[in-house]
Amino acid sequence: MKLLQVDTLQEAFEKLREAAEEMPLRTETKELSRAFGRILAEDVRSEEPIPAFRRSSVDGYAVRSADTAGATDSIPVFLEVIEEVAIGHPALRRIGPGACAYVPTGGMIPEGADAMVMVEYTEPLDGRHVAVNASVPYGKFVVEAGEDVKKGETVLARGTRIDPAQAGVLAAVGASRVEVYAPWRVSILSTGDELVPVDCAPGPGQVRDINTWTLSAAALHLGMEIVGRQAVADDEGALEEAICREASRCDLLLVSGGSSQGRKDATMEALDRISGGGVFTHGLALKPGKPTILGYDAGRRTILAGLPGHPVAALTVFSLLFGRLWRELTGQREPLPVPARMDTNLPAAPGKATCVPVRLAPEGCGAGGTGLFAVPLLGKSGLITTVSGADGYILMDRDQEGIRRDETVLVYRYF
Amino acid sequence: MKLLQVDTLQEAFEKLREAAEEMPLRTETKELSRAFGRILAEDVRSEEPIPAFRRSSVDGYAVRSADTAGATDSIPVFLEVIEEVAIGHPALRRIGPGACAYVPTGGMIPEGADAMVMVEYTEPLDGRHVAVNASVPYGKFVVEAGEDVKKGETVLARGTRIDPAQAGVLAAVGASRVEVYAPWRVSILSTGDELVPVDCAPGPGQVRDINTWTLSAAALHLGMEIVGRQAVADDEGALEEAICREASRCDLLLVSGGSSQGRKDATMEALDRISGGGVFTHGLALKPGKPTILGYDAGRRTILAGLPGHPVAALTVFSLLFGRLWRELTGQREPLPVPARMDTNLPAAPGKATCVPVRLAPEGCGAGGTGLFAVPLLGKSGLITTVSGADGYILMDRDQEGIRRDETVLVYRYF
Repeated sequence: MKLLQVDTLQEAFEKLREAAEEMPLRTETKELSRAFGRILAEDVRSEEPIPAFRRSSVDGYAVRSADTAGATDSIPVFLEVIEEVAIGHPALRRIGPGACAYVPTGGMIPEGADAMVMVEYTEPLDGRHVAVNASVPYGKFVVEAGEDVKKGETVLARGTRIDPAQAGVLAAVGASRVEVYAPWRVSILSTGDELVPVDCAPGPGQVRDINTWTLSAAALHLGMEIVGRQAVADDEGALEEAICREASRCDLLLVSGGSSQGRKDATMEALDRISGGGVFTHGLALKPGKPTILGYDAGRRTILAGLPGHPVAALTVFSLLFGRLWRELTGQREPLPVPARMDTNLPAAPGKATCVPVRLAPEGCGAGGTGLFAVPLLGKSGLITTVSGADGYILMDRDQEGIRRDETVLVYRYF
Repeated sequence: MKLLQVDTLQEAFEKLREAAEEMPLRTETKELSRAFGRILAEDVRSEEPIPAFRRSSVDGYAVRSADTAGATDSIPVFLEVIEEVAIGHPALRRIGPGACAYVPTGGMIPEGADAMVMVEYTEPLDGRHVAVNASVPYGKFVVEAGEDVKKGETVLARGTRIDPAQAGVLAAVGASRVEVYAPWRVSILSTGDELVPVDCAPGPGQVRDINTWTLSAAALHLGMEIVGRQAVADDEGALEEAICREASRCDLLLVSGGSSQGRKDATMEALDRISGGGVFTHGLALKPGKPTILGYDAGRRTILAGLPGHPVAALTVFSLLFGRLWRELTGQREPLPVPARMDTNLPAAPGKATCVPVRLAPEGCGAGGTGLFAVPLLGKSGLITTVSGADGYILMDRDQEGIRRDETVLVYRYF
C-alpha cells in the first residue's frame, strides 16, 4: 500500500475547487413561475425606473404644496378639483395654482402637483371643489419616479436564490424569464454486501442502505439533480463498470460505502484507475469523515468522491465540502453562522478537525437571557438519528484543544 | 360604513386557528424518494432494534476481553482465529476462551465475544492464530443491538420535515412509504386595474403585478400547492364570480390588491357576502399590513384573506399569519429566532406592532466580537427590493416605544 497523506478540509476543498474550474457550470432559461428556489446565473438589471411615474402613497388630493400654506381645520384652503385620476390610468391635466386632482393610492400624480393631502384632511364641497384642512410640505406622500430603482440599476446579483421576495423583485422589473444555473447531475453508487434496500427486512448481519437517501436528499436540497441511484455488489468488476458508466453521464459521482479498510482501498483504486490517476485526496483530517476519497476524471469531466460508509460521516463530508463548493461555484453567499454559548465542555480530537452536531436552545428567561445555548448531540455510534435532531454543527479546529462550557461557538447549518 | 375595529396579530391568528380547526388536514402516502421536504403526518416508530445485531465499529478481532488481560507489545496474547466474519453475513461460531474471530467494521460480532481489538494492535501468525498486543476492556468497539434505537421507539415525530438526515432515519427503520401532510390548495386572485402581467410593459399609471409572484413563491416555500393564479379586473361582478369559483376549489383564497380604501371595502364586502358573513378581521394593528381582511367560508371550508396591495405588506402578513398557522397545523416547530444587537435606534409606530426587515452582519473581530448585528432595512416606499436583501425581521410590540442601539433583538425568518 502506498503511504498516503490525509488532507485537511481546506486542502481538500481547494483541490475540489481547482477541478471544478475545469467544468464550467451550465445555465438554463426558466420562466419565473418555474424558477423559484433556483440560483440566478446573471445580474438582473431594471430596464426602467421603478416606479416609472410619480405615484401617490395615499388616497387623497394631489396639490401644489404652496397652495396649502397655513391651511387648518378652522381656516381651510379651497381648491378646484380638475381631475379624478383613475388607478392604472395616466393623469391628463396639469395642476395650476388653486387646482388639485383626486389620486388614489398607487395612482399617478399629475404634473404641476408636488404633494399629496390625505383624504382624511379634506372635505368635499360642491362636487367641483374641496376644502383642505392641513398644510403639506413639498414632496409629502409622493414617490418619485426611480425612487425605488433607477434605470439600469442591478436589482439582484448573480448567485441570488429566488425566494419569495426575490420573485417579487423579478416581477417588478419584468424579468418573466431568467437565466439560472442548471443543476449538477449527481449519481450515487452505494456499495456494500451488507446493505439491503429500504423496503427489505435485513437478515442477520445486514443493514438498510441509508446513504443513498441522505445523499439524494442533500443533493436535491442544494439544488442538484439525481440522475442515478444504484446499489453495487462488493465486486471489483461490477464496481468499475458502474463507475465508468455513471461517470460518463454525471458531474458528480458519489460512491458511498467502504468504511472498512479493504473496501476503501478497492474503491480508491477503482476511482483512480478509471480517472487515469485523478484521485487527489486519500483521506480527510476530519472527524467524522476520515475515509474520504476525492478525485477528478478529466476525460469525462466528472468529480469523483468516495464517501465514508458511516451515514453521519458521509452526510458531514457532503455538506462541508460539496455544499460549500456548490454555493461558491454558483456565487451564493455562505449562510452566516449563529453564535451560541456552549452548554458543556467538549474535548477535541488531536490532529484533526472535529464536526459536532448541536441543538440550539434558548438561554431562558434570566436577566439578559436572550441568547442561545449550543447543546452537542453525542451518541456512541453516532447514528443518523443523532443528526436528525440537530440545528447545525460546530467545527473544532485541528489545533484546538476543546471547547469550555460557556465559551461562544459558531453554529453552522448542515444545509 | 360600519365602525370596524382592527385586530392585533395575535387576535387575528387565534381567529384563523379557530377557523382552521374546521378544516382537518388531508394526508397522503408518499414513497420516500418523493417525500423529501414534506412534513410527517404521523410519528414514525422503529419495528426493530437498531442495530439489529451486535456490531463492530472497527476492523479487527472479536475477543473475550478477559483473554486480553495484560497483553502488551512485548508480551502479546495469542488467540486462535476460528472465523472470518464477512460483512453482511451472520457470525456462525461461538467464541470460547482462547478463540477470536475477524470482524470488519459494521460486521456482526459472534456470540461469546464481548470486545473488539483493532487490527492495528494485532499481528497475524500462522494463518490460524493472531498475536494481540493490547488489552481491551469489556464492550470496547462493540455497538450493542438496540443501542441506537430500541424496538418500538419513536424515531421521528409528527411535524418533522424530511430533510437529509431525516430521510436517513426513515431509511434506517425501513419506512419506504411515509404519511405526510397534503399541501393546502392555494388560489391567488390579484385585483387592480393598474396591474399588468410580468411580461408586459406597463403604460402610464400602470405597474407590474408583484403579489401574485411573491405569494405563489411563499406558499410553495411553505409546502402548499398553487391551484389558481389569476388577475381580476376592478369590477364587482367579476370579483365576486372569481371568489365564488376559486373558494370552491381551494383551502386558502388570497385576494391581493386593494390598498386604496374604496377597493379594500369592495373586497371586504365581496368576501363577506360570499362567505355568508364569514369575515372576522377587518384590519390588522400591524405595520405594514393594516388593510388585511380575514374570514372563513364555512360552506366551502375555505379560509379567505384579502391582503394589502403593497407587496411588502402582503408578503409580511402572509409570512406572519399563514406561515405560523401552517407550521402549527402540521405540528412543525417554530424556527428559533436569532439574537442580534441592534446597530441603530429605531422608533416604533404607536398603537400597532411594527415588522422591520433586517440584515444580519457579523459584529467584527473585536474582543469577544462573535455576535451578530441587526441592520434595519428602511426604504421610504418600502419596495420589495428592501425585503429581498433581508435575512429576517424584527417585530416591535404595539406598546414598545422603539429600540435603542445595542439593545438585543430577536430576528425571525420570513420563511
